[in-house]
Amino acid sequence: MHTASCMNTLNTNPFVDAFKTGLSLPAILDPNFEEAIRHVLDNPGSLVRPHMVFQVATAYGVDATSARDLAVALEYFHTASLLFDDLPCMDNATERRGVPCVHLAYGDAGAILAALALINRAYALIWRAASGASPQVQSQALVFIEQCLGVEGLLNGQSLDLHYATLPHNRETTERIARGKTVSLIRLTLVLPALLGGASAREIQLLERIALYWGLGYQMVDDLKDVLDSAAEAGKTVARDILLDRPNVASVLGIPRATLRLARFIHLGDTTLHRLLKSRPGLSFLGKLRSDLEEELVRVTRNASEMTVGARS
Amino acid sequence: MHTASCMNTLNTNPFVDAFKTGLSLPAILDPNFEEAIRHVLDNPGSLVRPHMVFQVATAYGVDATSARDLAVALEYFHTASLLFDDLPCMDNATERRGVPCVHLAYGDAGAILAALALINRAYALIWRAASGASPQVQSQALVFIEQCLGVEGLLNGQSLDLHYATLPHNRETTERIARGKTVSLIRLTLVLPALLGGASAREIQLLERIALYWGLGYQMVDDLKDVLDSAAEAGKTVARDILLDRPNVASVLGIPRATLRLARFIHLGDTTLHRLLKSRPGLSFLGKLRSDLEEELVRVTRNASEMTVGARS
Repeated sequence: MHTASCMNTLNTNPFVDAFKTGLSLPAILDPNFEEAIRHVLDNPGSLVRPHMVFQVATAYGVDATSARDLAVALEYFHTASLLFDDLPCMDNATERRGVPCVHLAYGDAGAILAALALINRAYALIWRAASGASPQVQSQALVFIEQCLGVEGLLNGQSLDLHYATLPHNRETTERIARGKTVSLIRLTLVLPALLGGASAREIQLLERIALYWGLGYQMVDDLKDVLDSAAEAGKTVARDILLDRPNVASVLGIPRATLRLARFIHLGDTTLHRLLKSRPGLSFLGKLRSDLEEELVRVTRNASEMTVGARS
Repeated sequence: MHTASCMNTLNTNPFVDAFKTGLSLPAILDPNFEEAIRHVLDNPGSLVRPHMVFQVATAYGVDATSARDLAVALEYFHTASLLFDDLPCMDNATERRGVPCVHLAYGDAGAILAALALINRAYALIWRAASGASPQVQSQALVFIEQCLGVEGLLNGQSLDLHYATLPHNRETTERIARGKTVSLIRLTLVLPALLGGASAREIQLLERIALYWGLGYQMVDDLKDVLDSAAEAGKTVARDILLDRPNVASVLGIPRATLRLARFIHLGDTTLHRLLKSRPGLSFLGKLRSDLEEELVRVTRNASEMTVGARS
């Protein structure tokens, strides 16, 4: 299962610089290590995630510096998880963000050390952003971060993903993996900045639900794309998940049922977002994520019907 | 270069339980992931480090719960660094703490995910221990932690270590690596609990120096052992560093000069400890680390002369 990567860039992204300079490199580094890190910093992804983190944080009154620290931190966690996922002992990928994977250019050890550098930096940035908050808020934040990144979250998701061949190939398994891998990172994106901005328990609960629906939704779009799209369109090898026996909800449910389920998640997300915006109208920008998801659904559905028509003709 | 592992256990260690239970495992984990983590938690090292962290923290008035959190956290960081170091792409070790390495039992991915679980847990524990401190103290702590664990510290040390074959084989290189790998973790052990306990800048400076002298000293003992000891005594293959072209200060300096340099570090450590104890007598337990180091020096020197005598007879 590939982690969801289908959110589109929001115009020009001011986080390119922040991503590149968020981890400053002292002059004395081992050259291989330094080049591995530069390779990562010079090839950011779409950076939709930090943009979203920044917007949520500022909507909750977090100051711009802390919001930016938080945004870069979460993008570093995300990037580190990709560096690990791409390793030969995990997904054995060759390309990421249009360039060769770090481990191909700088060895597995280079990729691991670069990923750990990002993780250490991310913790320092988050802690700095949160250190002015009350001990209660800090405590909630640290419990939440470990829930998302620790044994119950991202790490267990990745381990289940790696051992998918030994698990029942059904919706429960694929969604369990998606909750671990994709939803965890979207929860961090939407909920952590709100937590640090002192959001109410009710708003946190609504944001948690939105993260679940959209996280599962974006993963489902990614899975549908893997099954349907051409290599050129998806930017990766077609139907790699099926070939490699990787979890893919579109292949276990079939395309029509997966598409219906995705539509259901969008609907549930809408209802929840509607409630959230009543108490916090400043979060209306979240509608962009929702409409991106719907656009993807429309595109995927169109491709699917064209394929069906093509198969009939 | 092996990280220093020669500090002896201080009687029975109360941190065995804390180490084993510091990372609680929910029932829903992927079995391979869960077993990899259990393998790590069931095989603690000597646990001298957490004992020392706890003693420094309480000497500075940190409450027992926070001191214990801090102690377990730093042991988890240390253990995670060993899991990474042992991987085939790094030191390619087969045994650790008397049992097969995690990657041999649960795959490289299992070892990596277990190590990341320890790191996430460690950050949560440290942050929890520090969240009651002032923003200023928290800020100092987070900068210090990243200095030790991040690109300038442990990670760069490990990368230099891996690329030692391409570097000048001299004292500067081996000590630069030892500063990155061994000293960084001893700095965390001695300085971080003092920082969180509100130690003065002067005391922090003295603790930093002691960490440097003893860190280099313990690494030097480890390197001397690697060159001199029998496999049974050192618990690992003899002179592995030389065979594998790994950094070893005893092999670049020769045994007599390395022994003299170690004696010098002990002396410098003594002078610094003496000053520190004048302002903070409660740290007198640190003398134990110092006398362990001297004992090792005596033992190593005796072995060296026996070898010389043996060679002559």
